[in-house]
Amino acid sequence: MKERPDRAGTMEFEIETGAAVLERTPGTLRAMLSGLPPAWLDATEGAGTWSPYDVLGHLIHGERTDWIPRARIILAQGPDRRFTPFDRFAQLRQDRRPIDELLGEFELLRTGSLRELRGWRLTSEHLNLEGVHPEFGAVTLRQLLATWVAHDLGHIAQVARVMARQYREAVGPWRAYLPVMDR
Amino acid sequence: MKERPDRAGTMEFEIETGAAVLERTPGTLRAMLSGLPPAWLDATEGAGTWSPYDVLGHLIHGERTDWIPRARIILAQGPDRRFTPFDRFAQLRQDRRPIDELLGEFELLRTGSLRELRGWRLTSEHLNLEGVHPEFGAVTLRQLLATWVAHDLGHIAQVARVMARQYREAVGPWRAYLPVMDR
Repeated sequence: MKERPDRAGTMEFEIETGAAVLERTPGTLRAMLSGLPPAWLDATEGAGTWSPYDVLGHLIHGERTDWIPRARIILAQGPDRRFTPFDRFAQLRQDRRPIDELLGEFELLRTGSLRELRGWRLTSEHLNLEGVHPEFGAVTLRQLLATWVAHDLGHIAQVARVMARQYREAVGPWRAYLPVMDR
Repeated sequence: MKERPDRAGTMEFEIETGAAVLERTPGTLRAMLSGLPPAWLDATEGAGTWSPYDVLGHLIHGERTDWIPRARIILAQGPDRRFTPFDRFAQLRQDRRPIDELLGEFELLRTGSLRELRGWRLTSEHLNLEGVHPEFGAVTLRQLLATWVAHDLGHIAQVARVMARQYREAVGPWRAYLPVMDR
Protein backbone atom coordinates (compact mmCIF):
# COMPACT_ATOMS: atom_id res chain seq x y z
CA MET A 1 0.00 0.00 0.00
CA LYS A 2 1.47 3.33 -1.03
CA GLU A 3 2.33 6.18 1.29
CA ARG A 4 -0.49 8.65 1.57
CA PRO A 5 -0.47 12.29 2.55
CA ASP A 6 -2.20 13.29 5.77
CA ARG A 7 -3.50 16.83 5.67
CA ALA A 8 -6.60 16.69 7.86
CA GLY A 9 -7.58 20.05 9.26
CA THR A 10 -4.43 21.84 8.28
CA MET A 11 -5.16 23.36 4.88
CA GLU A 12 -4.57 27.09 4.85
CA PHE A 13 -7.19 29.21 3.17
CA GLU A 14 -6.18 30.63 -0.22
CA ILE A 15 -8.55 32.48 -2.50
CA GLU A 16 -8.20 30.31 -5.61
CA THR A 17 -8.20 26.96 -3.79
CA GLY A 18 -11.30 28.03 -1.90
CA ALA A 19 -12.99 29.55 -4.94
CA ALA A 20 -12.49 26.24 -6.79
CA VAL A 21 -14.95 24.72 -4.33
CA LEU A 22 -17.34 27.68 -4.24
CA GLU A 23 -17.72 27.72 -8.01
CA ARG A 24 -18.56 23.99 -8.08
CA THR A 25 -21.38 24.05 -5.53
CA PRO A 26 -24.22 25.14 -7.85
CA GLY A 27 -23.31 22.44 -10.39
CA THR A 28 -23.01 19.83 -7.66
CA LEU A 29 -26.47 20.62 -6.31
CA ARG A 30 -27.90 20.71 -9.83
CA ALA A 31 -26.42 17.28 -10.55
CA MET A 32 -27.86 15.92 -7.30
CA LEU A 33 -31.29 17.54 -7.29
CA SER A 34 -32.55 18.60 -10.71
CA GLY A 35 -35.35 16.32 -11.86
CA LEU A 36 -35.26 14.26 -8.69
CA PRO A 37 -38.61 12.83 -7.46
CA PRO A 38 -40.26 15.11 -4.82
CA ALA A 39 -40.01 12.35 -2.20
CA TRP A 40 -36.25 12.98 -2.16
CA LEU A 41 -36.41 16.77 -2.39
CA ASP A 42 -38.75 16.99 0.60
CA ALA A 43 -37.13 14.29 2.70
CA THR A 44 -36.01 15.38 6.18
CA GLU A 45 -34.43 13.80 9.25
CA GLY A 46 -37.53 14.48 11.30
CA ALA A 47 -39.46 17.48 12.61
CA GLY A 48 -37.44 20.69 12.66
CA THR A 49 -34.76 19.37 10.28
CA TRP A 50 -34.16 20.48 6.72
CA SER A 51 -34.88 18.85 3.40
CA PRO A 52 -32.61 19.18 0.34
CA TYR A 53 -35.09 21.80 -0.89
CA ASP A 54 -34.71 23.79 2.36
CA VAL A 55 -30.92 23.60 2.21
CA LEU A 56 -30.90 25.10 -1.28
CA GLY A 57 -33.14 27.93 -0.06
CA HIS A 58 -30.75 28.53 2.83
CA LEU A 59 -27.76 28.74 0.48
CA ILE A 60 -29.61 31.27 -1.69
CA HIS A 61 -30.39 33.39 1.35
CA GLY A 62 -26.74 33.23 2.44
CA GLU A 63 -25.64 34.33 -0.97
CA ARG A 64 -27.84 37.42 -0.73
CA THR A 65 -27.28 38.43 2.86
CA ASP A 66 -24.29 36.70 4.41
CA TRP A 67 -20.94 36.03 2.74
CA ILE A 68 -20.29 38.88 0.33
CA PRO A 69 -22.15 41.49 2.41
CA ARG A 70 -20.02 40.58 5.45
CA ALA A 71 -16.85 40.63 3.39
CA ARG A 72 -17.82 44.14 2.22
CA ILE A 73 -18.21 45.26 5.85
CA ILE A 74 -14.72 43.99 6.65
CA LEU A 75 -13.13 45.50 3.55
CA ALA A 76 -14.76 48.91 4.15
CA GLN A 77 -13.11 49.06 7.63
CA GLY A 78 -15.71 51.62 8.70
CA PRO A 79 -16.33 52.63 12.31
CA ASP A 80 -18.98 49.91 12.82
CA ARG A 81 -17.76 46.52 11.60
CA ARG A 82 -20.49 44.44 13.20
CA PHE A 83 -22.19 41.96 10.88
CA THR A 84 -25.97 41.85 10.55
CA PRO A 85 -27.10 38.59 12.22
CA PHE A 86 -27.88 35.94 9.60
CA ASP A 87 -31.41 34.57 9.50
CA ARG A 88 -30.87 30.82 9.27
CA PHE A 89 -34.57 30.09 8.88
CA ALA A 90 -35.56 32.61 6.20
CA GLN A 91 -36.03 29.89 3.57
CA LEU A 92 -38.70 28.16 5.67
CA ARG A 93 -41.01 31.17 5.28
CA GLN A 94 -40.82 31.27 1.47
CA ASP A 95 -43.49 30.04 -0.94
CA ARG A 96 -42.78 26.81 -2.73
CA ARG A 97 -40.97 27.18 -6.07
CA PRO A 98 -39.76 24.66 -8.66
CA ILE A 99 -36.36 23.24 -7.76
CA ASP A 100 -34.84 24.24 -11.11
CA GLU A 101 -35.82 27.84 -10.45
CA LEU A 102 -33.93 27.74 -7.15
CA LEU A 103 -30.94 26.00 -8.74
CA GLY A 104 -30.80 28.67 -11.44
CA GLU A 105 -31.09 31.49 -8.94
CA PHE A 106 -28.33 30.06 -6.76
CA GLU A 107 -26.03 29.62 -9.77
CA LEU A 108 -26.60 33.19 -10.88
CA LEU A 109 -26.03 34.62 -7.40
CA ARG A 110 -22.90 32.51 -6.86
CA THR A 111 -21.44 33.59 -10.21
CA GLY A 112 -21.93 37.21 -9.16
CA SER A 113 -20.42 36.58 -5.73
CA LEU A 114 -17.31 35.03 -7.24
CA ARG A 115 -16.96 37.83 -9.75
CA GLU A 116 -17.00 40.33 -6.88
CA LEU A 117 -14.63 38.22 -4.72
CA ARG A 118 -12.06 37.84 -7.49
CA GLY A 119 -12.46 41.48 -8.49
CA TRP A 120 -11.18 42.53 -5.07
CA ARG A 121 -7.78 40.93 -5.82
CA LEU A 122 -7.30 40.24 -2.14
CA THR A 123 -3.83 40.19 -0.61
CA SER A 124 -2.74 38.56 2.65
CA GLU A 125 -3.17 41.94 4.31
CA HIS A 126 -6.79 42.12 3.20
CA LEU A 127 -7.40 38.58 4.46
CA ASN A 128 -6.12 39.60 7.90
CA LEU A 129 -8.61 42.48 8.23
CA GLU A 130 -11.28 42.02 10.86
CA GLY A 131 -15.00 42.41 11.30
CA VAL A 132 -17.16 41.77 14.34
CA HIS A 133 -19.36 38.69 14.49
CA PRO A 134 -22.52 39.22 16.62
CA GLU A 135 -21.54 36.23 18.81
CA PHE A 136 -17.86 35.48 18.35
CA GLY A 137 -16.50 39.01 18.26
CA ALA A 138 -13.43 39.68 16.07
CA VAL A 139 -13.07 37.43 13.02
CA THR A 140 -10.82 37.83 10.00
CA LEU A 141 -11.82 38.00 6.37
CA ARG A 142 -9.75 34.84 5.90
CA GLN A 143 -11.89 33.00 8.46
CA LEU A 144 -15.10 34.29 6.89
CA LEU A 145 -14.10 33.06 3.43
CA ALA A 146 -12.86 29.68 4.71
CA THR A 147 -16.21 29.33 6.50
CA TRP A 148 -18.08 30.08 3.28
CA VAL A 149 -16.30 27.13 1.61
CA ALA A 150 -16.77 24.75 4.55
CA HIS A 151 -20.42 25.82 4.88
CA ASP A 152 -21.08 24.85 1.24
CA LEU A 153 -19.45 21.46 1.76
CA GLY A 154 -21.26 20.86 5.04
CA HIS A 155 -24.59 21.43 3.34
CA ILE A 156 -23.71 19.18 0.39
CA ALA A 157 -22.87 16.48 2.95
CA GLN A 158 -26.17 17.19 4.70
CA VAL A 159 -28.22 16.82 1.51
CA ALA A 160 -26.61 13.45 0.76
CA ARG A 161 -27.00 12.30 4.37
CA VAL A 162 -30.67 13.32 4.64
CA MET A 163 -31.40 11.39 1.45
CA ALA A 164 -29.43 8.32 2.53
CA ARG A 165 -31.31 8.17 5.82
CA GLN A 166 -34.64 7.74 4.06
CA TYR A 167 -33.50 4.15 3.44
CA ARG A 168 -32.47 3.48 7.03
CA GLU A 169 -35.00 0.67 7.32
CA ALA A 170 -34.93 -0.36 3.65
CA VAL A 171 -31.26 -1.41 3.77
CA GLY A 172 -31.96 -4.07 6.42
CA PRO A 173 -28.81 -5.52 8.04
CA TRP A 174 -26.48 -3.34 5.89
CA ARG A 175 -27.32 -0.46 8.23
CA ALA A 176 -24.41 -1.66 10.38
CA TYR A 177 -22.03 -0.96 7.47
CA LEU A 178 -23.43 2.47 6.63
CA PRO A 179 -22.17 5.02 9.17
CA VAL A 180 -24.13 7.73 7.33
CA MET A 181 -27.34 6.25 8.76
CA ASP A 182 -26.62 6.79 12.41
CA ARG A 183 -23.68 9.13 12.86
CA MET B 1 -44.15 28.47 9.19
CA LYS B 2 -45.83 25.92 6.96
CA GLU B 3 -46.47 22.28 7.79
CA ARG B 4 -43.66 20.03 6.66
CA PRO B 5 -43.69 16.33 5.89
CA ASP B 6 -41.65 14.04 8.12
CA ARG B 7 -40.48 10.95 6.27
CA ALA B 8 -37.15 10.16 7.98
CA GLY B 9 -36.11 6.56 7.60
CA THR B 10 -39.38 5.33 6.23
CA MET B 11 -39.06 5.51 2.45
CA GLU B 12 -39.73 2.17 0.81
CA PHE B 13 -37.35 1.10 -1.90
CA GLU B 14 -38.73 1.34 -5.44
CA ILE B 15 -36.64 0.79 -8.55
CA GLU B 16 -37.25 4.12 -10.27
CA THR B 17 -37.00 6.28 -7.15
CA GLY B 18 -33.74 4.55 -6.28
CA ALA B 19 -32.40 4.61 -9.84
CA ALA B 20 -33.02 8.38 -9.94
CA VAL B 21 -30.28 8.70 -7.31
CA LEU B 22 -27.96 6.07 -8.81
CA GLU B 23 -27.97 7.75 -12.21
CA ARG B 24 -27.06 11.12 -10.69
CA THR B 25 -23.99 10.00 -8.74
CA PRO B 26 -21.43 10.14 -11.58
CA GLY B 27 -22.52 13.66 -12.53
CA THR B 28 -22.49 14.76 -8.90
CA LEU B 29 -18.93 13.53 -8.41
CA ARG B 30 -17.87 15.07 -11.71
CA ALA B 31 -19.34 18.43 -10.67
CA MET B 32 -17.54 18.21 -7.31
CA LEU B 33 -14.16 16.84 -8.37
CA SER B 34 -13.29 17.47 -12.02
CA GLY B 35 -10.57 20.10 -12.31
CA LEU B 36 -10.28 20.51 -8.55
CA PRO B 37 -6.78 21.29 -7.16
CA PRO B 38 -4.93 18.12 -6.02
CA ALA B 39 -4.84 19.38 -2.43
CA TRP B 40 -8.61 18.72 -2.29
CA LEU B 41 -8.56 15.44 -4.22
CA ASP B 42 -5.93 13.95 -1.90
CA ALA B 43 -7.27 15.37 1.35
CA THR B 44 -8.05 12.80 4.06
CA GLU B 45 -9.28 12.80 7.65
CA GLY B 46 -5.99 11.33 8.86
CA ALA B 47 -4.01 8.11 8.47
CA GLY B 48 -6.10 5.19 7.26
CA THR B 49 -8.98 7.37 6.03
CA TRP B 50 -9.97 7.97 2.42
CA SER B 51 -9.53 10.95 0.14
CA PRO B 52 -12.11 11.98 -2.48
CA TYR B 53 -9.82 10.25 -5.02
CA ASP B 54 -9.94 7.00 -2.98
CA VAL B 55 -13.72 7.14 -2.64
CA LEU B 56 -14.11 7.38 -6.40
CA GLY B 57 -11.83 4.35 -6.84
CA HIS B 58 -13.93 2.46 -4.30
CA LEU B 59 -17.15 3.26 -6.17
CA ILE B 60 -15.59 2.03 -9.42
CA HIS B 61 -14.56 -1.22 -7.76
CA GLY B 62 -18.07 -1.67 -6.33
CA GLU B 63 -19.55 -1.14 -9.77
CA ARG B 64 -17.40 -3.95 -11.17
CA THR B 65 -17.61 -6.49 -8.36
CA ASP B 66 -20.38 -5.70 -5.89
CA TRP B 67 -23.86 -4.44 -6.75
CA ILE B 68 -24.81 -5.92 -10.10
CA PRO B 69 -22.81 -9.15 -9.61
CA ARG B 70 -24.60 -9.74 -6.29
CA ALA B 71 -27.98 -8.95 -7.83
CA ARG B 72 -27.20 -11.53 -10.54
CA ILE B 73 -26.47 -14.15 -7.86
CA ILE B 74 -29.81 -13.46 -6.23
CA LEU B 75 -31.75 -13.47 -9.49
CA ALA B 76 -30.15 -16.73 -10.66
CA GLN B 77 -31.43 -18.47 -7.48
CA GLY B 78 -28.79 -21.16 -7.96
CA PRO B 79 -27.85 -23.68 -5.26
CA ASP B 80 -25.09 -21.41 -3.84
CA ARG B 81 -26.35 -17.88 -3.27
CA ARG B 82 -23.43 -16.69 -1.20
CA PHE B 83 -21.92 -13.34 -2.32
CA THR B 84 -18.20 -13.03 -2.95
CA PRO B 85 -16.82 -10.84 -0.11
CA PHE B 86 -16.30 -7.28 -1.33
CA ASP B 87 -12.74 -5.91 -1.17
CA ARG B 88 -13.21 -2.47 0.36
CA PHE B 89 -9.56 -1.55 -0.03
CA ALA B 90 -8.89 -2.58 -3.64
CA GLN B 91 -8.64 1.05 -4.80
CA LEU B 92 -5.73 1.71 -2.43
CA ARG B 93 -3.55 -0.74 -4.37
CA GLN B 94 -4.12 0.87 -7.77
CA ASP B 95 -1.71 3.12 -9.63
CA ARG B 96 -2.52 6.79 -9.71
CA ARG B 97 -4.66 7.93 -12.64
CA PRO B 98 -6.05 11.31 -13.67
CA ILE B 99 -9.30 12.08 -11.88
CA ASP B 100 -11.17 12.67 -15.15
CA GLU B 101 -10.23 9.19 -16.29
CA LEU B 102 -11.78 7.74 -13.12
CA LEU B 103 -14.85 9.93 -13.44
CA GLY B 104 -15.34 8.77 -17.02
CA GLU B 105 -14.86 5.12 -16.10
CA PHE B 106 -17.35 5.36 -13.24
CA GLU B 107 -19.93 7.05 -15.48
CA LEU B 108 -19.58 4.36 -18.14
CA LEU B 109 -19.81 1.52 -15.64
CA ARG B 110 -22.82 3.05 -13.89
CA THR B 111 -24.63 3.58 -17.19
CA GLY B 112 -24.12 -0.11 -17.94
CA SER B 113 -25.26 -1.12 -14.45
CA LEU B 114 -28.47 0.86 -14.77
CA ARG B 115 -29.15 -0.52 -18.23
CA GLU B 116 -28.88 -4.03 -16.80
CA LEU B 117 -30.95 -3.19 -13.72
CA ARG B 118 -33.78 -1.67 -15.74
CA GLY B 119 -33.57 -4.46 -18.29
CA TRP B 120 -34.51 -6.94 -15.59
CA ARG B 121 -37.94 -5.29 -15.19
CA LEU B 122 -38.02 -6.34 -11.58
CA THR B 123 -41.31 -7.09 -9.85
CA SER B 124 -42.03 -7.15 -6.11
CA GLU B 125 -41.50 -10.88 -6.21
CA HIS B 126 -38.02 -10.45 -7.63
CA LEU B 127 -37.22 -7.85 -4.98
CA ASN B 128 -38.16 -10.33 -2.27
CA LEU B 129 -35.70 -12.99 -3.53
CA GLU B 130 -32.78 -13.69 -1.24
CA GLY B 131 -29.04 -14.14 -1.42
CA VAL B 132 -26.56 -14.88 1.35
CA HIS B 133 -24.28 -12.15 2.64
CA PRO B 134 -20.96 -13.49 3.97
CA GLU B 135 -21.62 -11.83 7.35
CA PHE B 136 -25.32 -11.03 7.66
CA GLY B 137 -26.75 -14.20 6.12
CA ALA B 138 -30.03 -13.89 4.20
CA VAL B 139 -30.68 -10.53 2.55
CA THR B 140 -33.23 -9.59 -0.09
CA LEU B 141 -32.61 -8.06 -3.49
CA ARG B 142 -34.65 -5.09 -2.27
CA GLN B 143 -32.21 -4.55 0.62
CA LEU B 144 -29.21 -4.90 -1.69
CA LEU B 145 -30.52 -2.27 -4.10
CA ALA B 146 -31.54 0.14 -1.32
CA THR B 147 -28.03 -0.26 0.08
CA TRP B 148 -26.51 0.56 -3.29
CA VAL B 149 -28.39 3.90 -3.26
CA ALA B 150 -27.56 4.70 0.36
CA HIS B 151 -23.93 3.71 -0.20
CA ASP B 152 -23.62 6.22 -3.05
CA LEU B 153 -25.11 8.96 -0.90
CA GLY B 154 -22.96 8.07 2.09
CA HIS B 155 -19.84 8.43 -0.02
CA ILE B 156 -20.96 11.72 -1.52
CA ALA B 157 -21.48 12.96 2.03
CA GLN B 158 -18.03 11.62 2.93
CA VAL B 159 -16.31 13.44 0.06
CA ALA B 160 -17.90 16.74 1.08
CA ARG B 161 -17.11 16.15 4.76
CA VAL B 162 -13.46 15.21 4.16
CA MET B 163 -13.02 18.37 2.12
CA ALA B 164 -14.79 20.58 4.67
CA ARG B 165 -12.57 19.28 7.46
CA GLN B 166 -9.44 20.54 5.76
CA TYR B 167 -10.55 23.99 6.92
CA ARG B 168 -11.20 22.96 10.52
CA GLU B 169 -8.58 25.38 11.78
CA ALA B 170 -8.98 27.94 8.99
CA VAL B 171 -12.59 28.74 9.95
CA GLY B 172 -11.56 29.95 13.41
CA PRO B 173 -14.48 30.44 15.82
CA TRP B 174 -17.06 29.42 13.19
CA ARG B 175 -16.08 25.82 13.88
CA ALA B 176 -18.72 25.86 16.63
CA TYR B 177 -21.41 26.49 13.97
CA LEU B 178 -20.19 23.84 11.54
CA PRO B 179 -21.27 20.38 12.76
CA VAL B 180 -19.56 18.83 9.71
CA MET B 181 -16.19 19.59 11.32
CA ASP B 182 -16.55 17.44 14.42
CA ARG B 183 -19.50 15.09 14.05
